[in-house]
Amino acid sequence: MRLSQFFVPTVKEIPADAAIPSHQLMVRSGMVRPVAAGVYAFLPLGLRVLQNVIGIVREEMNRIGAQEMLLPALSPVELWQRTGRVEAFGETLFHLKGRPLVLAPTHEEVVCELARTHIASYRDMPQIWYQIQTKFRNEPRPRSGVLRGRQFLMKDSYSLDATPEGLDRAYALHAGAYARIFSRCGIRYFVAGASSGAMGGTGSQEFMMESESGEDVVALSTGGRYAANMEVATSAMGASRWTPDDAPVSEVHTPGVRTIDELAAFLGVTHDRLAKSVVYQGGGKPVLVLMMGNDLLNEAKLASVLGTDVRPVEAERLRSLTGADGGSIGPVGLRGFTILADERLRGGCGLVSGANRNDYHLAHIDLARDCAIEGYHDFRTVQEAEQAPDGSGPLRIARAIELGHIFKLGTKYADALGATFLDERGAGAPVVMGSYGIGLERIIACHIEQHHDADGIVWGASLAPFDVQLIAVGGRSAAVAETAEALYSEMGEAGIDVLFDDRADTGPGFKFKDADLLGMPCQVIVGERNLAAGQIEIKERGTGRRSLVPRAALTANVKELVTRKDEAWNQ
Amino acid sequence: MRLSQFFVPTVKEIPADAAIPSHQLMVRSGMVRPVAAGVYAFLPLGLRVLQNVIGIVREEMNRIGAQEMLLPALSPVELWQRTGRVEAFGETLFHLKGRPLVLAPTHEEVVCELARTHIASYRDMPQIWYQIQTKFRNEPRPRSGVLRGRQFLMKDSYSLDATPEGLDRAYALHAGAYARIFSRCGIRYFVAGASSGAMGGTGSQEFMMESESGEDVVALSTGGRYAANMEVATSAMGASRWTPDDAPVSEVHTPGVRTIDELAAFLGVTHDRLAKSVVYQGGGKPVLVLMMGNDLLNEAKLASVLGTDVRPVEAERLRSLTGADGGSIGPVGLRGFTILADERLRGGCGLVSGANRNDYHLAHIDLARDCAIEGYHDFRTVQEAEQAPDGSGPLRIARAIELGHIFKLGTKYADALGATFLDERGAGAPVVMGSYGIGLERIIACHIEQHHDADGIVWGASLAPFDVQLIAVGGRSAAVAETAEALYSEMGEAGIDVLFDDRADTGPGFKFKDADLLGMPCQVIVGERNLAAGQIEIKERGTGRRSLVPRAALTANVKELVTRKDEAWNQ
Repeated sequence: MRLSQFFVPTVKEIPADAAIPSHQLMVRSGMVRPVAAGVYAFLPLGLRVLQNVIGIVREEMNRIGAQEMLLPALSPVELWQRTGRVEAFGETLFHLKGRPLVLAPTHEEVVCELARTHIASYRDMPQIWYQIQTKFRNEPRPRSGVLRGRQFLMKDSYSLDATPEGLDRAYALHAGAYARIFSRCGIRYFVAGASSGAMGGTGSQEFMMESESGEDVVALSTGGRYAANMEVATSAMGASRWTPDDAPVSEVHTPGVRTIDELAAFLGVTHDRLAKSVVYQGGGKPVLVLMMGNDLLNEAKLASVLGTDVRPVEAERLRSLTGADGGSIGPVGLRGFTILADERLRGGCGLVSGANRNDYHLAHIDLARDCAIEGYHDFRTVQEAEQAPDGSGPLRIARAIELGHIFKLGTKYADALGATFLDERGAGAPVVMGSYGIGLERIIACHIEQHHDADGIVWGASLAPFDVQLIAVGGRSAAVAETAEALYSEMGEAGIDVLFDDRADTGPGFKFKDADLLGMPCQVIVGERNLAAGQIEIKERGTGRRSLVPRAALTANVKELVTRKDEAWNQ
Repeated sequence: MRLSQFFVPTVKEIPADAAIPSHQLMVRSGMVRPVAAGVYAFLPLGLRVLQNVIGIVREEMNRIGAQEMLLPALSPVELWQRTGRVEAFGETLFHLKGRPLVLAPTHEEVVCELARTHIASYRDMPQIWYQIQTKFRNEPRPRSGVLRGRQFLMKDSYSLDATPEGLDRAYALHAGAYARIFSRCGIRYFVAGASSGAMGGTGSQEFMMESESGEDVVALSTGGRYAANMEVATSAMGASRWTPDDAPVSEVHTPGVRTIDELAAFLGVTHDRLAKSVVYQGGGKPVLVLMMGNDLLNEAKLASVLGTDVRPVEAERLRSLTGADGGSIGPVGLRGFTILADERLRGGCGLVSGANRNDYHLAHIDLARDCAIEGYHDFRTVQEAEQAPDGSGPLRIARAIELGHIFKLGTKYADALGATFLDERGAGAPVVMGSYGIGLERIIACHIEQHHDADGIVWGASLAPFDVQLIAVGGRSAAVAETAEALYSEMGEAGIDVLFDDRADTGPGFKFKDADLLGMPCQVIVGERNLAAGQIEIKERGTGRRSLVPRAALTANVKELVTRKDEAWNQ
């Protein structure tokens, strides 16, 4: 491709709205342009990268026996009502005016309907169906370029099985395919335990990349063996030992004491004797959750237990519900609440908690004896430096970007939509589903986040839009122009993808800067002085290493360089 | 691909809502399934065909130097307001609830915005940009399967030029590419002059296929040299000769005379002396159009002249506007109307028309002398058997399906959106645009319309999802099973795409019926009796010709058959 005829509108300035390197570089290199908030056009250079990503994804999905189809973006709203997801997605679901249609943000419903209509027997399964298709989400705050947009390309796949074991197999196949996809795309990633969120189901994992600009927070053990989204992360906090305490509940005057630290100091007890109350609203009744000492409640874990979104109850309402302010609220004698407790408090006795009366607490609480606890669950937010639950060392808390997400859905959708089949004994049973997604533009952005420097992008071989940028400098020299033209043909015939900077009216400085910005793995520079000595310069973008090669050996040298890189990435 | 593991839900019954062969066969062969009215899922077999189409389209677009990009479906409504197309598209434009976004039915606005931002100089052109992307149109009556859906894949391209001559070149390049695309896709098509409609611009042509189920009507000369959409078709109707008539206008009592035929008989004159008045509403004032004799007004031509949609004025309103009923209305002395006349009446005198008084007509009308005609245009609907305007013989009126449409837009969009560049003299000028579209699913449906028989689809080689359907019959014979497996590998290694009907529980009759329905160009049948004689049967789907080939020569034979067909289609 000749740059003089290729629409690549590069820009020197960093776009005002672009905070992260991938966003800046995708705009500056002319890969994308915004059309509306969170809506991007892929220009020719960007599309070449996207097609490389699609090629890799397609190969790896086909390799696990997945069948490609293409499902529509328009989806009947009625289908989403039946699974309760019009509500679950809420504002992020795009509705059309004047027709009962939504723009699908994912395709469980449509796939499940296909399964309901066409999967009659256990013999019709297993099936893995996938598509590479545009998704729509009405993000309230689109940002970070293509990382969080309102429309984006996704590879989504769905497994249909007769048994949970079948689902386990399909899930494992996907985990393998995803690992190969991200490796081949040159991304350093990790796999984290994750929450199923609005998707529902029995388990899920995220493929993630550590990044300060990530929207997710994860806990990672230093060795890297343990990794989990904070929404589900746990740590090896030992269970407390409870000393039997038969004393009855008694009120203690605690004037001016507000925090757990103040309370511990005032009473002269350790934090694990204190049961802090936090109050949330979610669904029906208000919920009081008891946490040990200063342990922080993890709202995602609470939401997952309750099966609904949650929000803290405001101070005023708190007072009218309990008769006290936050800091003096407690579970004993409290009515009209769902009362839950963190797993660490299971079996707790001899505890202190709020008295539902300002400036007073209750001591000698035995949870089983004195409170109506409806359940103990893990509600705790893990903290930096705690030990990983699998013994793999202390935890580090970091931000991360989600690259892919795999879900064991189980029978949630089949139950809602009536997708049943006849099993081996001739009995009806719901189809067991899995769901698996990768954001394709996101792969590009993440690759750039990990592969760039101050001058621009540093493409890995598998995603690079071209193998080589060929630069002719010294526009007036006929020898330079002729040699560059000859090399362009020669490399093309050798199967090397070349972007030829043949612009006549652009100086060498601009050409070098553009080549570094666009980031092809290999630059071939035809200059007057070197050429006079029969030499061509090669610059490897990744290392910056420059070498001079005899004219006759140039194509063979470049071919070797390009192939070696390909192999490295594709191992 | 093994049919036992491939999701191809074939059906015997013709779907109740499917009126035309391609719709019936695409559903029956398991290529597509409806998800909502006018919204289809492409299942794995259908997607393979779609990918073949995409491959051909991409090759031919790249061949003319077009650059592929990918523009978003979400589009700011504000952009469409500025070009007046929110109104022009009306109900067919999908709007989103709660955001000022529409789903793009085409991309002139977005492309023009890109041009405005990035095309600064005549040196930045020519450009041809294309994409293969999903379009959305809120069709009031989706029908005929994928032929008229609410979402569909389109190859749309846009040319940007500095001069009208540049546009002519880009338009010619597209005409060539389209001819190659439809030929390679095995479609018998013709090119027709067309109306620019809501797109605007200075000229357009349609690539069409004759079909009884088409929504367009065209006039074709028998030799096929002349072809035009009825919206613009003309014929070689000689101009009338006018005999000067100095007599003043005089009223004639014509009791009970309603039609042109009755009037001609009553007055004893030929039809070309009669000026019939038809009245339309479109935009501002009502419009009276004079047509010669029984000539039919072509509403599309009138709309094109007025630049707005038109509708006939109702009887009641007609009476209140003119004081008379239809049949007695005329142009003389009429106020409050825009008065236009058909080209055939230019220079007309000695004419009879309505008197705007029931049962009366006026004679001796000289249009120039007696009427305030604002313009003469071609408003006439051509009729079967009239001579083509280019002398290529009598016209035939037929129904047709539009496959592609190419438009010279000129500067309409650049003017509306302010997309200007500096020309060679340094002066600002608007970008000259062209717009070119092909519906991709439509190519598949049209191919099937032309290539099917009572048993199913008869794929041409270039679109066929597989080259060969391999059928093992006689499930209990180990020799048959082994040979079929061996041939499956052997043909695969020879680069032949094989769909292997390896279903163990399906009888030969069903397998043969399915193979004919799915329509691969070549069937390879491994049967017990033939195999015992060392023979394999080949059936060519197109001709039905069967031949027996020695086992050892099978793959070479099939390879030759498949290659020969490929070449025939790809010439």
